[in-house]
Amino acid sequence: MKHIIKAQQFNKRNLSKLFSIAKEMDIIVKSGGSNILSHKVMATLFYEPSTRTRLSFESAMHKLGGEVITTESAREFSSSAKGETLEDSIRVIEGYADVIVLRHYESGAAKRAAMVSKTPIINAGDGSGQHPTQALLDIYTIKKELGEINGISVAMVGDLANGRTVRSLSYLLGKYEDIKIYFVTPEIVRMKQDIKAYLKRHNIQFFEENDLKKVCAKVDVVYQTRIQRERFGERVEDYEKAHGKYIISKEILDVMKKKSIIMHPLPRLDEIKSEVDSDPRAAYFRQAQNGLYIRMALLKMLLTS
Amino acid sequence: MKHIIKAQQFNKRNLSKLFSIAKEMDIIVKSGGSNILSHKVMATLFYEPSTRTRLSFESAMHKLGGEVITTESAREFSSSAKGETLEDSIRVIEGYADVIVLRHYESGAAKRAAMVSKTPIINAGDGSGQHPTQALLDIYTIKKELGEINGISVAMVGDLANGRTVRSLSYLLGKYEDIKIYFVTPEIVRMKQDIKAYLKRHNIQFFEENDLKKVCAKVDVVYQTRIQRERFGERVEDYEKAHGKYIISKEILDVMKKKSIIMHPLPRLDEIKSEVDSDPRAAYFRQAQNGLYIRMALLKMLLTS
Amino acid sequence: MKHIIKAQQFNKRNLSKLFSIAKEMDIIVKSGGSNILSHKVMATLFYEPSTRTRLSFESAMHKLGGEVITTESAREFSSSAKGETLEDSIRVIEGYADVIVLRHYESGAAKRAAMVSKTPIINAGDGSGQHPTQALLDIYTIKKELGEINGISVAMVGDLANGRTVRSLSYLLGKYEDIKIYFVTPEIVRMKQDIKAYLKRHNIQFFEENDLKKVCAKVDVVYQTRIQRERFGERVEDYEKAHGKYIISKEILDVMKKKSIIMHPLPRLDEIKSEVDSDPRAAYFRQAQNGLYIRMALLKMLLTS
Repeated sequence: MKHIIKAQQFNKRNLSKLFSIAKEMDIIVKSGGSNILSHKVMATLFYEPSTRTRLSFESAMHKLGGEVITTESAREFSSSAKGETLEDSIRVIEGYADVIVLRHYESGAAKRAAMVSKTPIINAGDGSGQHPTQALLDIYTIKKELGEINGISVAMVGDLANGRTVRSLSYLLGKYEDIKIYFVTPEIVRMKQDIKAYLKRHNIQFFEENDLKKVCAKVDVVYQTRIQRERFGERVEDYEKAHGKYIISKEILDVMKKKSIIMHPLPRLDEIKSEVDSDPRAAYFRQAQNGLYIRMALLKMLLTS
Repeated sequence: MKHIIKAQQFNKRNLSKLFSIAKEMDIIVKSGGSNILSHKVMATLFYEPSTRTRLSFESAMHKLGGEVITTESAREFSSSAKGETLEDSIRVIEGYADVIVLRHYESGAAKRAAMVSKTPIINAGDGSGQHPTQALLDIYTIKKELGEINGISVAMVGDLANGRTVRSLSYLLGKYEDIKIYFVTPEIVRMKQDIKAYLKRHNIQFFEENDLKKVCAKVDVVYQTRIQRERFGERVEDYEKAHGKYIISKEILDVMKKKSIIMHPLPRLDEIKSEVDSDPRAAYFRQAQNGLYIRMALLKMLLTS
Repeated sequence: MKHIIKAQQFNKRNLSKLFSIAKEMDIIVKSGGSNILSHKVMATLFYEPSTRTRLSFESAMHKLGGEVITTESAREFSSSAKGETLEDSIRVIEGYADVIVLRHYESGAAKRAAMVSKTPIINAGDGSGQHPTQALLDIYTIKKELGEINGISVAMVGDLANGRTVRSLSYLLGKYEDIKIYFVTPEIVRMKQDIKAYLKRHNIQFFEENDLKKVCAKVDVVYQTRIQRERFGERVEDYEKAHGKYIISKEILDVMKKKSIIMHPLPRLDEIKSEVDSDPRAAYFRQAQNGLYIRMALLKMLLTS
């Protein structure tokens, strides 16, 4: 594995390897960091801003003793404003860096970068394409919180049409056995056919459901997502309807299983009410924290083998 | 002391402690830096830009061997653009950082952040609220330059209504004895009642004065501030009148005491003429430099005890 | 040499010294970096963005164990928006940094900064003025690729009127013997008189030519540049004509000497066709890479002697 481009690169075996390195990383952070990436330089090349993703990668690099060069808004600031191709930019940056973390607004950009780069590329999100490190931290969170992935049932709630994270997570869940997925989503943002076909091929049972409370009462994981206002344009009314439909509140908590968890890729608006935050099943801030360990693990895997 | 939120947190005893650590830091910088914060990560989370404050914090961290993750314009770039609350942002960032330096456009933001954060928060200015590290470097500069704070007399000149620094400095001067303060200010930007009431309660004598030259002849510290054009909106004439009224020039230098100093939080326009810069009493660039030592001292106090 | 302000500061002797340190730096990078600049802080103060230049400086600093504080868009974000002079900004920043890398939109800014700064200033481009580190990496690339500078012939192609790089390279070539330069340029962006006069004084032969193919058949270096659209404003037709006139394609490669090289300061549009990239004589990405070694060498020279 030279580049990290998409979730499907991973199988059960190397996911298990990744989880075990991530666990080591957790211990390394708590015991004060490491020097294994000393003098290594990571370039975070962000053609669109994503502060949380960028900062977690940069912290990951620093906790392993490495250094960072960064551009938060490459689209506007970099040579791309003068018409340079992504491929040329990569061929220059690879001369300055030992690993390139790329965020781009075009689907497929990470793959194009990897085609020309001698330096490892990590896809930190490319348009409507993939965001594999988010999917990896999601599946790692499930493993860490529940102890097991095989046999679990998951409710995916909210915008399943545009949400990159639920799509990538579906790919990864497809690698495991006896998974059940419940899609709870406004009509207008249903999960797309390609993912359903993929799940079918991988013998994953899935169901379309309307009753959030009923579903939450039986699942191990409630994966809530934000309805993205920007997808609705002028259709304000449609947005309001979709947005308000499925909210995680104390009422939902009351029916959930004791050992279940609530996840969210963040940022959230009020699709999870703040009254939920203090419940031990609210796993979303721990999930964000796991991003640090997963990214450290990936950096270690790419740069020290 | 877990968080640094406002100047009033400090009393004479821990100010004295801070000064002595700042002095150590000066020596550490001159002897080539330290590793005491090795692998610690500081996040500078700036919802409005303040290059000088940010760079001095970042340099402070590096001189102690620590690392930095940064966002220069969090308001525009971060998840806050998608409607995330400050509290949620902090709960995510605290997972990536050992200390968070927060600059925000809303008064009270630092306190709100500290309420939810397990990681230390340092307030680097919140709206019209506080900017405690500026106040601390100001009082440290007086101590370092004059040797003593008790018994001094200070002229505060310029915009005392909107100037955050003179307000915070007043709070700190209130901790000492036999202080005299002279307010020299255009009618339109007078020092506000709350500070005057505070000074009264702390037995600090203060006077409203019009004659800059007369005042400068007798004080130990002239603290000049910039009249902020942005506060005047359309009232250009009012601005011009206020701005030009009290200027520190060679003429003022000529009447000042030999052991007095001129301070300014910077940036300055022409409220201190450049002809003053070469005079040994012009302390404003040394004052900026002290910001490095004070911030190093605060980082050391928060992260190594 | 305290500051790096312009290409003319260098003569044959210290260029030779610089080349030999740059070669050491290449070895240091390949063997995993160094700690010679440990705890040193470099400030990259960019009043206009130049991602590639900034990132290569920052990587250079990190590969030598140093730290970086940075502002990508000082013009907009820094105190200069409040009317602070460059000189004041420098006098503040020098208190936080051991070296300042300055990019500015005004010609002469680097020199002004150096006048007031106790901390070394490196000019990373000031308006239509100089960009000396680009010139140094260009001449180093020629030396490294061809083994010799004396006696070579160089074609400078494209926008020679506005191109800062060809001007600075001309200054440096003037230090060597038996150089021949061919200017191949649209009428509208001819090399200016001051450079021609300089070359005459230094006994460098130069020729104006129209036939790119004929020139490329005989030179050792083809230095292609981008026609800068932004210089043409409304004159779109003029731009299109100038831009399309001299293109390096496979056809040109076919006539070039076996041991010759093609250089370009990058970014490029299509003035070098991508079909050329895989030819071993395409030296432009290696040239960009040399920027890292040259900048490391300069940092070492300024900060460790």
